[in-house]
Amino acid sequence: MTRAYLAGPDVFLPSATAFAAKKKELCHRYGFEGVFPLDVELDLQNLSPRDAGLCISQANEKLIRSCQLVIAHMTPFRGPSCDVGTAYEMGFARALGLRVFAYSNVTKDFSARTKDFAPGWQKRDEKTIEDADHMQIESFDLTDNLMLVGAVEESGGNLALHDAAPAELYTDLTAFEECLEAARKLFGAP
Amino acid sequence: MTRAYLAGPDVFLPSATAFAAKKKELCHRYGFEGVFPLDVELDLQNLSPRDAGLCISQANEKLIRSCQLVIAHMTPFRGPSCDVGTAYEMGFARALGLRVFAYSNVTKDFSARTKDFAPGWQKRDEKTIEDADHMQIESFDLTDNLMLVGAVEESGGNLALHDAAPAELYTDLTAFEECLEAARKLFGAP
Repeated sequence: MTRAYLAGPDVFLPSATAFAAKKKELCHRYGFEGVFPLDVELDLQNLSPRDAGLCISQANEKLIRSCQLVIAHMTPFRGPSCDVGTAYEMGFARALGLRVFAYSNVTKDFSARTKDFAPGWQKRDEKTIEDADHMQIESFDLTDNLMLVGAVEESGGNLALHDAAPAELYTDLTAFEECLEAARKLFGAP
Repeated sequence: MTRAYLAGPDVFLPSATAFAAKKKELCHRYGFEGVFPLDVELDLQNLSPRDAGLCISQANEKLIRSCQLVIAHMTPFRGPSCDVGTAYEMGFARALGLRVFAYSNVTKDFSARTKDFAPGWQKRDEKTIEDADHMQIESFDLTDNLMLVGAVEESGGNLALHDAAPAELYTDLTAFEECLEAARKLFGAP
């Protein structure tokens, strides 16, 4: 069965394992085997926090290498952009030639979100806006940083957007299911 | 000459090209050819913002493929973590087998920075803390998300930390030069 790595900040949810099961069940319905970052049993008991972190990182990279596609959860996380671990895994998958699918539970575009985050933004010149630190604010009519959206577009994946209710910001699966639908079309019915 | 891709939010600086020249000059001094994301001349004039963004993304991926190492600028950017474009490029480089070096101009660790960012953090249980959205706060004694630090460690690179003055948060090159020093040791003198 085609394996789909489920990247995202879902690992930080209080009920991460139950949520993973829900996502995997949906994957199965669309003909995919969902692979969650926490799927590998790691014995972290006797490791320092640092070594435990590095051990998880290696395990996740190995899991991505075993998959044919990634479905990345890109809902903004602690700032205007998605979780950096997710961004890293999208780049990792893209370089390996995997198809990169992604979804976000916020439809507002990246430029507007960054302006909300940086209320002191201003015009730098006719074509450019910047934040209070004088760092340019990307304005490419995209959902997030151009590298992330580029990975989805260039790999032939699909980016699904949906506005979730605030209480379900990280758990709404409407857009995730839209990715599965698109992936089924691309990979063919099981 | 060994080529080093200079990933980072430096592209958003008002004087990005001049700053790139400064970084490249330093690279040269240590025996490396610095490769900056904006090095390729792209004709974006007649493209929509969206297509321009995707064109830049493809050009950057091509540049990374032409390099042997990455030196990623990981200073926190609009939130407790580094720029997501940089995180993406670290993952991309890592999957291709490049050495990943990184530096940050903030020494405070990731867990502490995330607590600063999320003042409503609380204990979830004896071993876990979470933010007000009940999303876990990583506490692995690392500089940023474990995937990013894992890339540096596993690839044999070096992570350099330095506390820059606020006005030079994104432009201080002390830690960047420390990466070059470590890279010279690894790749050998030119």
